[in-house]
Amino acid sequence: MARARNTVPKRPTIAQYLIKRLHDYGVRHVFGIPGDYILTFYDRLSASPLKLVGTSKEDGAGFAADAYARVKGMGAVCVTYCVGGLSIVNAVAGAYAEKSPVVVISGAPGMDERVNDPLLHHKVRTFSSQREIFEKITAAAVALEDPETAFSLIDETLATCWRLKRPVYFELPRDLVDAVPRGDYRRQVPAEVSDPAILSEAVTEAVARLNAAKRPVILADVEMHRFGLSDELVALVERTGYPVAATILGKSVIGELHPSYLGVYEGAMGRAEVQRAVEDADCLLMLGTVLSDVNLGVFTARLDPARAIEATSEKVRISRHRYDGIRLGDFVGALLDAPLKRRPKPKARPRAKPAPLAPAQKIRATRLFELLDQRLEEDMAVVCDVGLCLFGAIDLTIHRRTEFIAPAYYTSMGFGVPASVGAALANPALRPVVLVGDGAFQMTGMELSTIAAQKLDPIVILLDNRGYTTERFINDGPYNDIHPWHYEKMADLLGVGTGCVVGSEGEFAAAWDRALGNRGQFSLIVVNLDPLDPCPALKRLGEQMGANCKPR
Amino acid sequence: MARARNTVPKRPTIAQYLIKRLHDYGVRHVFGIPGDYILTFYDRLSASPLKLVGTSKEDGAGFAADAYARVKGMGAVCVTYCVGGLSIVNAVAGAYAEKSPVVVISGAPGMDERVNDPLLHHKVRTFSSQREIFEKITAAAVALEDPETAFSLIDETLATCWRLKRPVYFELPRDLVDAVPRGDYRRQVPAEVSDPAILSEAVTEAVARLNAAKRPVILADVEMHRFGLSDELVALVERTGYPVAATILGKSVIGELHPSYLGVYEGAMGRAEVQRAVEDADCLLMLGTVLSDVNLGVFTARLDPARAIEATSEKVRISRHRYDGIRLGDFVGALLDAPLKRRPKPKARPRAKPAPLAPAQKIRATRLFELLDQRLEEDMAVVCDVGLCLFGAIDLTIHRRTEFIAPAYYTSMGFGVPASVGAALANPALRPVVLVGDGAFQMTGMELSTIAAQKLDPIVILLDNRGYTTERFINDGPYNDIHPWHYEKMADLLGVGTGCVVGSEGEFAAAWDRALGNRGQFSLIVVNLDPLDPCPALKRLGEQMGANCKPR
Repeated sequence: MARARNTVPKRPTIAQYLIKRLHDYGVRHVFGIPGDYILTFYDRLSASPLKLVGTSKEDGAGFAADAYARVKGMGAVCVTYCVGGLSIVNAVAGAYAEKSPVVVISGAPGMDERVNDPLLHHKVRTFSSQREIFEKITAAAVALEDPETAFSLIDETLATCWRLKRPVYFELPRDLVDAVPRGDYRRQVPAEVSDPAILSEAVTEAVARLNAAKRPVILADVEMHRFGLSDELVALVERTGYPVAATILGKSVIGELHPSYLGVYEGAMGRAEVQRAVEDADCLLMLGTVLSDVNLGVFTARLDPARAIEATSEKVRISRHRYDGIRLGDFVGALLDAPLKRRPKPKARPRAKPAPLAPAQKIRATRLFELLDQRLEEDMAVVCDVGLCLFGAIDLTIHRRTEFIAPAYYTSMGFGVPASVGAALANPALRPVVLVGDGAFQMTGMELSTIAAQKLDPIVILLDNRGYTTERFINDGPYNDIHPWHYEKMADLLGVGTGCVVGSEGEFAAAWDRALGNRGQFSLIVVNLDPLDPCPALKRLGEQMGANCKPR
Repeated sequence: MARARNTVPKRPTIAQYLIKRLHDYGVRHVFGIPGDYILTFYDRLSASPLKLVGTSKEDGAGFAADAYARVKGMGAVCVTYCVGGLSIVNAVAGAYAEKSPVVVISGAPGMDERVNDPLLHHKVRTFSSQREIFEKITAAAVALEDPETAFSLIDETLATCWRLKRPVYFELPRDLVDAVPRGDYRRQVPAEVSDPAILSEAVTEAVARLNAAKRPVILADVEMHRFGLSDELVALVERTGYPVAATILGKSVIGELHPSYLGVYEGAMGRAEVQRAVEDADCLLMLGTVLSDVNLGVFTARLDPARAIEATSEKVRISRHRYDGIRLGDFVGALLDAPLKRRPKPKARPRAKPAPLAPAQKIRATRLFELLDQRLEEDMAVVCDVGLCLFGAIDLTIHRRTEFIAPAYYTSMGFGVPASVGAALANPALRPVVLVGDGAFQMTGMELSTIAAQKLDPIVILLDNRGYTTERFINDGPYNDIHPWHYEKMADLLGVGTGCVVGSEGEFAAAWDRALGNRGQFSLIVVNLDPLDPCPALKRLGEQMGANCKPR
């Protein structure tokens, strides 16, 4: 068996080439579960510089690869045919919706096995069924069925993943893993550039509007993360003195202790002073925005297009007209070089002093987030699931950049625990603090097993309100209740980790302190909350989303 | 809110009509997890005669609905848009591959919310992305977006599900749940009939060949289950005296204590005497067969088409020509009425006497299945996951019909535990005995929580060989090892049920006896097996499937 460790031979196999290119893009870990159609490739991965990380279930691998991609710039998940691939459709769809560059690699029956269309195990309908499904949820879905075109397909597809920050899909027949193309191949991926005339006109107009404005404000969103423009954002903010807000999906795109930072804007769901500052801007510079219902506070946002400049990876829009053919990075770079008037820097707003710890007081959701906010440290990343924990996390203070990871648009339950695996492996210097509800934990909390196997040490805060509390505020019924678990016993089940239940503020504070010292294994803190104890944002969400808002 | 309990008003809403029709087809339980796009329909289900069964995770609901459909004739799963629907793609694909009539109902954004194509949460790419994916894995995928056509779409689509025994998909915008069509509707679903001339010619030819044969044999498969033809199969066997074998996917289509029953045929993977009897037949009557690689013993089957008559829901094939336009039930019915020569009934073969219990002996896989075979009772159903447990189960004796439930073609790991929920609710008279490996248990074993909530009492036998043993026999590597759990502590985690670990034959026998008396909650028996301890069929599978068959 050829070994791919460190060097790639002059005439590599398909497996060697794919592994090498993933490595070139910074991928160091591949998440997944083996199966017979992908076993040979697993062998090649085992012998490569990439590290295989097995998860409990395939979708856990998908969520882990997504979080890994958000932190590291590209992630990879490798699964078997259909039973594996079709188990990560939801996770990959989420990566698509939220622009996370995940590379999916699926095994497939060998080309030799397909003669006369036999009913091979795992096949659904035709041999192309799985690829056709992935076409719906990726930016490119290709089958590497011909060694002569495989290398160029690999290069083009990975370039697409990198350029669009969307998932892509490779299908590799098991009899071609070690195939070597006969012909020579020279890598040619054309660079993408902005049209200089369009860029110049757009920037000139934007600068004129910004300079004419009395109250310009920046609203920064997730694409600034994804396209690696966080440094440029900070430079722009510091050069211009513009105040800056983030969306919930873009939260932590700028360190939240920055003096120019306003907070998370989310229409009427966010804090009133942030809403006022953003909506009162006479020129709002929206950078890398995704105008989803969640980001817009379930459409409670009031953003006047006539007063907005919106630059994303897809277009630049000023007032009601748009410019195409401009790369986001080029636009932001040109703004940095442009003669933008400098505004007085906002004075650092004093942080509101939260009420002191009331040790005997029963803990409530609002207080949990306040207490947590006081305790988050520089070297932590908040990895957030959806529901109460996501809405509650709006006002957490994220100290540095790219440290808040949440599926804040696609909002798939069960993201949190497996995503923390990806985040921790992508940047071992950050300790994940996972926020997860009990409903979501029952879906994917078993990935604590992966955390145990990898000897990771997230602090997992499980908000146990005995059911789907977000839904209770929309439309309540017995279907929102779930079977209660003794979650703290997960550590006994897995033979690693610690678990405890807290009911008061003092118990939470003590559990947090113990968790800080508990390294090399997970700390699970189960917070007992009332089933109808919301955070303020959730209360407002329920009012916006449901006609039938009265919980039982 | 209109209530649908028991009666449907003269002018029903879409929700009422859909619920009524599901009820007409025998559906009494709907599996799923609520989400905001489906909450209104959940309310209507709650108020209907159908019982909602919440699972831990959506794919668990999919597997439960699949097993329910296998036992009851139709199953239903109800989920929210994208994050729910796309989480059951694998389970529904399995139902498609194995012809299980599962009805998928997904919520969707309201038609009123879609104006100008906003980025609503959970949306992947377009509003039709999810439906287009389900088109690949269902027999019909429809969106109920117009009240005027909704009722006819419901009727046609459910009829398709019933006729083809394949999953179908409904998407219901949340603002149309209570919509009432203005126009009148009269249900018209044309009956499907066989072409009498084609049927007559095919039966005449088949009868001539069968009567001319010296050693006719029947090979019965899963479609005989699905199309409700088990009684006809038994009648045919008893009327003709033909010996009968089953495939692994069709296992238990005839009670396995029937004197004419040969056993499971699976090419060289099955027992040698069954292989001999089937392959030596000079006329093999294949009824309702799915010629998958698993059913064919990874293509070790030697079935000469010139000596075969194959009747399925899709065609009748005799030797190398085919007849279309014949319903499977009509063909079987015509055979029953035809002048088939009666053969001497096979004499009941004495069951091999297994070695007696060796209480102190370390338990091995082969012995586990022998001991289990002696203990299975009339009122039990074996619900089987894949891998070692599936191959080991080939020679279990299933006492009655439709009592062996396994994904024996699609072979998706994680089917077993959630499927037992569906099986138990579909037929409360049967107590499930679940066979599941540790790898599969780590994927969906959390559905023991659903079992706890529903107060079901399966006996779950967990074959713990610390990894993916089937794969170890194909291509071994460290990726086949998984983090070990103390599975027996699941009962502590869930606050219900019992768990124990057994290492010897005597311990297994004692645990089984305790489980028999443990009603109203699950009994989890963890059987400690050596990582390289296979059953005979698995050993042969590894030899067939992998070039690299030497485990470490």
